[in-house]
Amino acid sequence: MHRFRIGNKTEGSFHILGDELYHLVKVLRLKEGDQAVGFDNTGVQYRGIIESIDRDCASCRIVEEKFPEVEAKTMVYIVMGLAKGEKIEWVIQKGTEIGMAGFVPLRTQRAVLQLDGKKAEQKVVRWQKIAAEAVKQCRRMIEPPIGKVADWNDLMDILPAQTQWVIAYEDEKTASLTHILRGFHSEYPIAILIGPEGGFTPEEVSEAREKLKACSVSLGPRILRTETAALTALTMVLTYFGDLG
Amino acid sequence: MHRFRIGNKTEGSFHILGDELYHLVKVLRLKEGDQAVGFDNTGVQYRGIIESIDRDCASCRIVEEKFPEVEAKTMVYIVMGLAKGEKIEWVIQKGTEIGMAGFVPLRTQRAVLQLDGKKAEQKVVRWQKIAAEAVKQCRRMIEPPIGKVADWNDLMDILPAQTQWVIAYEDEKTASLTHILRGFHSEYPIAILIGPEGGFTPEEVSEAREKLKACSVSLGPRILRTETAALTALTMVLTYFGDLG
Repeated sequence: MHRFRIGNKTEGSFHILGDELYHLVKVLRLKEGDQAVGFDNTGVQYRGIIESIDRDCASCRIVEEKFPEVEAKTMVYIVMGLAKGEKIEWVIQKGTEIGMAGFVPLRTQRAVLQLDGKKAEQKVVRWQKIAAEAVKQCRRMIEPPIGKVADWNDLMDILPAQTQWVIAYEDEKTASLTHILRGFHSEYPIAILIGPEGGFTPEEVSEAREKLKACSVSLGPRILRTETAALTALTMVLTYFGDLG
Repeated sequence: MHRFRIGNKTEGSFHILGDELYHLVKVLRLKEGDQAVGFDNTGVQYRGIIESIDRDCASCRIVEEKFPEVEAKTMVYIVMGLAKGEKIEWVIQKGTEIGMAGFVPLRTQRAVLQLDGKKAEQKVVRWQKIAAEAVKQCRRMIEPPIGKVADWNDLMDILPAQTQWVIAYEDEKTASLTHILRGFHSEYPIAILIGPEGGFTPEEVSEAREKLKACSVSLGPRILRTETAALTALTMVLTYFGDLG
């Protein structure tokens, strides 16, 4: 059944507006009497019957409300160095499916991709759309926020004080991610720092350890591309805490 | 340092030929006296100094031999329904980095992509190149074989008799992958069946259970795209058996 982010809800009905309405009418060609599923960012899912469709709004009478348990209980954030091409898009899409809590794009020393000012804002808007589409497709309830492009100094303020940080570092020889997770608590957020194509500099790793109390971790003996590292680390953390498979 | 698949080896030297030679000379512009790392599919890695470069061959004097432990000990195969676009390419590339043992493309009932005859052979050749490139980049020693496009009836003969099969099935409500792995043995191969975009039919799942003794598993409450499911499941299995992070 088709899922729509709802515009608003009145007693007994939800309403589909804007781009979502366009999709319902022009792409899916749904009609009065068809079913539709609506959700907002509160975790509730409504099953409804379309009662009326006009130029600005499709109204659906609610026949069922559910609180599907699809969100991961452990809040895991990906904080990723600006990478080239579509890697960030890819990580946001699949990270949303896998269950990330949010995403922060990070300016790092070795990042080839430079994003500032208006360009950065436009990219973030595009990335938010990708997350929104992925939420619909994977049947999540809550859209993971995509943060503004951040600098290292911003990180301490972007995520809560109790956040537990790990930094994926290919030169880390002893500490594996799985080992580090044993000392983590799933009730506090976890943030995974992933470097751009050139990785993190030793200075960035030192700063993360010092300022964020980040644990540097290896993701195993094979070198992973930045986008592979992001999703692999996310999968490992969510699986460890029982939020996947 | 740059890695090359070696053509052959004589006492005290290894030799770089063909496409690898072209890459060395024309792209990387290495010269006599430069270092190069050579590997073949045996797990040995050679560090060498380039002694001579001619039109057909670059010869390198071996200064060090190593057996880097980069290969996963657990043999995990991805058997994936033919999916559209570049999904199979992504899975092969990233599956190689993550550590898969091999890949089998599978014709399934709901696959949109149809591949037969010459087209299928050409695709497999392309996919093998992707695996070969990924091996070089991620520093693996052994290239995961990419099988011919298979039908369901072929599967029992393609992988060893002791292979432990799982089939990722979104309608599986009770058995999680992590739970099923508790009953698996890491010394025998594990094969993960991943459906195409439309998933597997109930008949295919029944047949897999009956003929391959496959356990159907859920990968969690969120719907994963086929390529996400492949890499997520692979990561979960290798992490479970200690071959990642």
